[in-house]
Amino acid sequence: MPATMKALRKLRPARGLELASVSIPVLGPTEVLVRVRSASVCGTDLHIYGWDRWSQNRIQPPVTLGHEFCGTVERVGEEVSSVAPGEFVSAEMHVSCGHCRPCRAGQPHVCQNLRIIGIDQDGAFAEFVRIPAQNIWRLDSAIPENYATILDPLGNAVHTVLAGPIAGQTVLVTGCGPIGLMAIAVAKACGSSTIFATEVNEQRRAMAVKMGADVALDPASEDAVARIQSETDGAGADVLLEVSDNASAIQQGFRALRPGGRASLLGIPADPVTLDLVNDVIFKGATVHGIYGRRMFETWVQTTALIKAGRLHLDPLFGERRPLERFEEAFSLLQNDLAGKVLLYPNGVPR
Amino acid sequence: MPATMKALRKLRPARGLELASVSIPVLGPTEVLVRVRSASVCGTDLHIYGWDRWSQNRIQPPVTLGHEFCGTVERVGEEVSSVAPGEFVSAEMHVSCGHCRPCRAGQPHVCQNLRIIGIDQDGAFAEFVRIPAQNIWRLDSAIPENYATILDPLGNAVHTVLAGPIAGQTVLVTGCGPIGLMAIAVAKACGSSTIFATEVNEQRRAMAVKMGADVALDPASEDAVARIQSETDGAGADVLLEVSDNASAIQQGFRALRPGGRASLLGIPADPVTLDLVNDVIFKGATVHGIYGRRMFETWVQTTALIKAGRLHLDPLFGERRPLERFEEAFSLLQNDLAGKVLLYPNGVPR
Amino acid sequence: MPATMKALRKLRPARGLELASVSIPVLGPTEVLVRVRSASVCGTDLHIYGWDRWSQNRIQPPVTLGHEFCGTVERVGEEVSSVAPGEFVSAEMHVSCGHCRPCRAGQPHVCQNLRIIGIDQDGAFAEFVRIPAQNIWRLDSAIPENYATILDPLGNAVHTVLAGPIAGQTVLVTGCGPIGLMAIAVAKACGSSTIFATEVNEQRRAMAVKMGADVALDPASEDAVARIQSETDGAGADVLLEVSDNASAIQQGFRALRPGGRASLLGIPADPVTLDLVNDVIFKGATVHGIYGRRMFETWVQTTALIKAGRLHLDPLFGERRPLERFEEAFSLLQNDLAGKVLLYPNGVPR
Amino acid sequence: MPATMKALRKLRPARGLELASVSIPVLGPTEVLVRVRSASVCGTDLHIYGWDRWSQNRIQPPVTLGHEFCGTVERVGEEVSSVAPGEFVSAEMHVSCGHCRPCRAGQPHVCQNLRIIGIDQDGAFAEFVRIPAQNIWRLDSAIPENYATILDPLGNAVHTVLAGPIAGQTVLVTGCGPIGLMAIAVAKACGSSTIFATEVNEQRRAMAVKMGADVALDPASEDAVARIQSETDGAGADVLLEVSDNASAIQQGFRALRPGGRASLLGIPADPVTLDLVNDVIFKGATVHGIYGRRMFETWVQTTALIKAGRLHLDPLFGERRPLERFEEAFSLLQNDLAGKVLLYPNGVPR
Repeated sequence: MPATMKALRKLRPARGLELASVSIPVLGPTEVLVRVRSASVCGTDLHIYGWDRWSQNRIQPPVTLGHEFCGTVERVGEEVSSVAPGEFVSAEMHVSCGHCRPCRAGQPHVCQNLRIIGIDQDGAFAEFVRIPAQNIWRLDSAIPENYATILDPLGNAVHTVLAGPIAGQTVLVTGCGPIGLMAIAVAKACGSSTIFATEVNEQRRAMAVKMGADVALDPASEDAVARIQSETDGAGADVLLEVSDNASAIQQGFRALRPGGRASLLGIPADPVTLDLVNDVIFKGATVHGIYGRRMFETWVQTTALIKAGRLHLDPLFGERRPLERFEEAFSLLQNDLAGKVLLYPNGVPR
Repeated sequence: MPATMKALRKLRPARGLELASVSIPVLGPTEVLVRVRSASVCGTDLHIYGWDRWSQNRIQPPVTLGHEFCGTVERVGEEVSSVAPGEFVSAEMHVSCGHCRPCRAGQPHVCQNLRIIGIDQDGAFAEFVRIPAQNIWRLDSAIPENYATILDPLGNAVHTVLAGPIAGQTVLVTGCGPIGLMAIAVAKACGSSTIFATEVNEQRRAMAVKMGADVALDPASEDAVARIQSETDGAGADVLLEVSDNASAIQQGFRALRPGGRASLLGIPADPVTLDLVNDVIFKGATVHGIYGRRMFETWVQTTALIKAGRLHLDPLFGERRPLERFEEAFSLLQNDLAGKVLLYPNGVPR
Repeated sequence: MPATMKALRKLRPARGLELASVSIPVLGPTEVLVRVRSASVCGTDLHIYGWDRWSQNRIQPPVTLGHEFCGTVERVGEEVSSVAPGEFVSAEMHVSCGHCRPCRAGQPHVCQNLRIIGIDQDGAFAEFVRIPAQNIWRLDSAIPENYATILDPLGNAVHTVLAGPIAGQTVLVTGCGPIGLMAIAVAKACGSSTIFATEVNEQRRAMAVKMGADVALDPASEDAVARIQSETDGAGADVLLEVSDNASAIQQGFRALRPGGRASLLGIPADPVTLDLVNDVIFKGATVHGIYGRRMFETWVQTTALIKAGRLHLDPLFGERRPLERFEEAFSLLQNDLAGKVLLYPNGVPR
Repeated sequence: MPATMKALRKLRPARGLELASVSIPVLGPTEVLVRVRSASVCGTDLHIYGWDRWSQNRIQPPVTLGHEFCGTVERVGEEVSSVAPGEFVSAEMHVSCGHCRPCRAGQPHVCQNLRIIGIDQDGAFAEFVRIPAQNIWRLDSAIPENYATILDPLGNAVHTVLAGPIAGQTVLVTGCGPIGLMAIAVAKACGSSTIFATEVNEQRRAMAVKMGADVALDPASEDAVARIQSETDGAGADVLLEVSDNASAIQQGFRALRPGGRASLLGIPADPVTLDLVNDVIFKGATVHGIYGRRMFETWVQTTALIKAGRLHLDPLFGERRPLERFEEAFSLLQNDLAGKVLLYPNGVPR
């Protein structure tokens, strides 16, 4: 094995990323080295590329990005027995401490000392990535490579949908970016009844319908709340899945929620949001879940089971693939591409 | 309106049923009279026909049978405003008292003073049936008549499947009679992953596969527990849906359940059952739900939503239809027919 | 029985209330007439007295106020068998329709067609009050009269506390008015560990400690969030019970909530509230419950069981009692009295 | 530090235990060495002493017993940062694998590859015990030593009580050995209403009342089911906590459970149990939980929080203390002592 590898890194506190040569990570006794097959670009990566306010506060260069990937185990630390070289794997990139209050409560996904691989330490936009053994997720070979690559954001969608009852429930998905589209597919696979989606972009609305939405609404040109209420006997939607990042979409989503309904919030608005708590939450007796990351590891079980059983149809999301070296094309595509995933290949694009 | 109607009744404490002419029911202020469109025959009706031990203890002749049906509202009592003549409806036939401990706990389906229409008082195998207004379930005209007729047993299946998490879970259905088959279809519609079914009858196993089972096992010729464990990495099934009525199927189902799994028990074994509580429930940390009737009325919401959204494919269950007068043919068919539903028409079979 | 009775009514769309003589209510077949023993004054009654913005939109004079009470059944309608004359009762004053989506989901407390007795129709500040039989709550004679009178607001507190896990959890109660004080007593009775309370009023903080709070903080003079975090290993409180009506208390409560924690919101802020959704709900993976009314009727079961078993110590809340005629004294006391309940007696104050 | 220590061991496949000198354990990188302060004797230890059928199948001599203890951290492995020498600790002695299906579902307490320290590998009846760092539970110095010693069985009781709703619920505890008595104290601390207890031994019934039971029944001389129903308006108990190990107590407990109730089963009957599944589980719509070990680590959070907040009054359980060398006295006391805990001190009894 060589001593160095190529990696896509934030080297300086400024816009852009650079391809660099770095040492292959050295393993501790409970760690695993994975040879990356493919990695996908997340919206967060775009923020870091652009070096926005959030990035400036969180990212400490130099660091290798990339937290959505799959690959093959190359080596394991001396204490590791749960996985072996040659296995096909992905990984949960949120690393929890195991001993804070949330970890002790069975909620390591909101660990007080959480570190994210690809954000707080070197990630998967590289030939190899180092992962704690307990974060490795072994994959059945029946899982297609493109699905295996995006288990992180797909897990976000599954976590959002399955945070409460979904079967036989009417659903509103606010925002139809990649995670919103995945949420539509997951809700449909899990027995939701009517799925409403709101999205201002026409192309994304068309994608939403392709993924399984029954009614795709443009809130800029139609009173979405009135429409949803009229199609639900005046009640509103049983379930709100908020993935838009947008304050007015959030407010609208809450207004469209029925009394006694459930709202799962995943989207990350840039600023605080003003809510009509009395009418939209309290008098409604609503249940609201903040959704972050993926349940460790029930979300991974659910996600891979749904894929393996053929319940999820995500093919419209895929298409573009590039070797890691051509990362600028990938980032550029995504800045214009509206709702798809672009895959990067640090070890070469397979035929 | 005439003063009398025809009804299929148990008139004497003996085998058999008789077609009789009875008065059309008089309504109290909170009751509704429904003109029956179609009614289906339940296994319980076969027991009452045969006058078995259970029937002898429970049934007090004379009484009109029939607790699965749909129809049109004919008249409503003076205090009734929630439904109007002409509406297409079915009904929850379990009538709860509203003030016992389970009713006050939001569990009217296990009311201490429960009375069942079609068992404890006159039911729907008649031209008209009298129902408390609060038990009426209004139906969208998009619900096909045959699905509308069997909402009672289909609701049993939905209640069983949705008593705990199902999406992304491996499932074992023990017993493939009509409710077992419906449970398979419901589990599949709600995102279960692999569905195992056990059933000794070959024809029913074939039906199970048609309804969505991935693996249909004959426990008489194969070690079903070993097979399920080997296909689940040694864990066992996440969820057991027990609808067989059979003691050894129940025992086998519990053995095949994974540690931490969920068992929902609907089947009614004739005698007490000996369970290895320590290994199959306690050390497993299993959760077991007794399932009776349908949640009022969340199960009805879920069931009709799943149908309306086109998520359930139950057509293989249907086929035979008869006017009420030819009830003997229906009962005879069912004693031999293995897994289908037979519909009776008290007001004539539509073309 | 006389034909008329005295009642405390809003007769005109203006500040103030008036004692009037009105007809004793006539019963429908499913209704119950209760002779009122005592009734307590709610903060809502103060708002209606003062004729604030909310009152002007909601109240349609003339109407008799009063929705917290106990009494003795005087007469029942012809269809009523669940309660009999002479029984000691209170009642759930939120009347649900029974057939809207939330009612069908087992959530009648957020019925879309909810009507409140004492707000939308004549209430219990009168010698007699008319109640639907299904809303009557029969009381064990072991329940003291003063506790029986305040089951409505005490039920609010129980609903808030028991909306999620409480045993062994650290709790923050924001706001120490009557319901906040009751929430402290309920949380303590249900096994909470450390109870923090925030309240700007010194007298109420002293009451909070008397009711069971371990740490009563004045957010005006101390950084309550920092204090709570420092006493919980940096985590924050497991549970937030928000009963303050105050936007900055709500914001502070959310900041003091631990990742993975639960917030139950009962207080009714006058205006929309700006929340840092990202940091306080989403990244925290928090669960938020809007709390309205009482679960029908599990909250009533829990509340009366806690009282009967001697688990709740609410005596500091009681003291002032007045005949209905001296209502002005009661309202005046409450405008200055900080955290107690005043009881009115329409049929005379017992010795 | 010396190279050897004294330990109480099963050396041979036969009745009895022996005090022996063994090497002090060598630590792996993720392990912790604890100097044992005190350890208590479990019923399981009595079984192993007596070398019953279960012991013969499970125990592989030589092994040091002891799985209930507290102590002080002596040394930590090189990868351990969550705990430091000198800290006061106890430990979860069930060691889970972290990667089987139940572990991945957040249910490590029913891990498929579970190993128990003190059963499957050397335990805490020794001067030192070796524990994986993730199993260490750090203790506040406010926790008294005797409470700290019995966190394992007390955690069993807490797990049993808090497996479902308890506040405002009527409770039946079947069996009043040490865990049954603790369950009574825990249920009372968590807001249960009436607590019924059944137990044939008179002394234990007296203890049950001392711990908080409202009604202690002798099922040998009274119809306990009839009594419980008559004191619950004919409904039965809301919650069954089964800790008796006895088949007829289990059957009786199920008969005394109300429709819609919850049964948590911890007791380990020696043989399979025949249940009237139809009437006692299915028609009742009961929920049954198998209880094993403690939730990792929410049960530990709850248990220590309840102790620290002064909610649990367990003093009647304590009394006897012995140096490890006088273990025969301890075991002999327990074979006759009915419901107390005996503490052993490997490093000397403090004054």
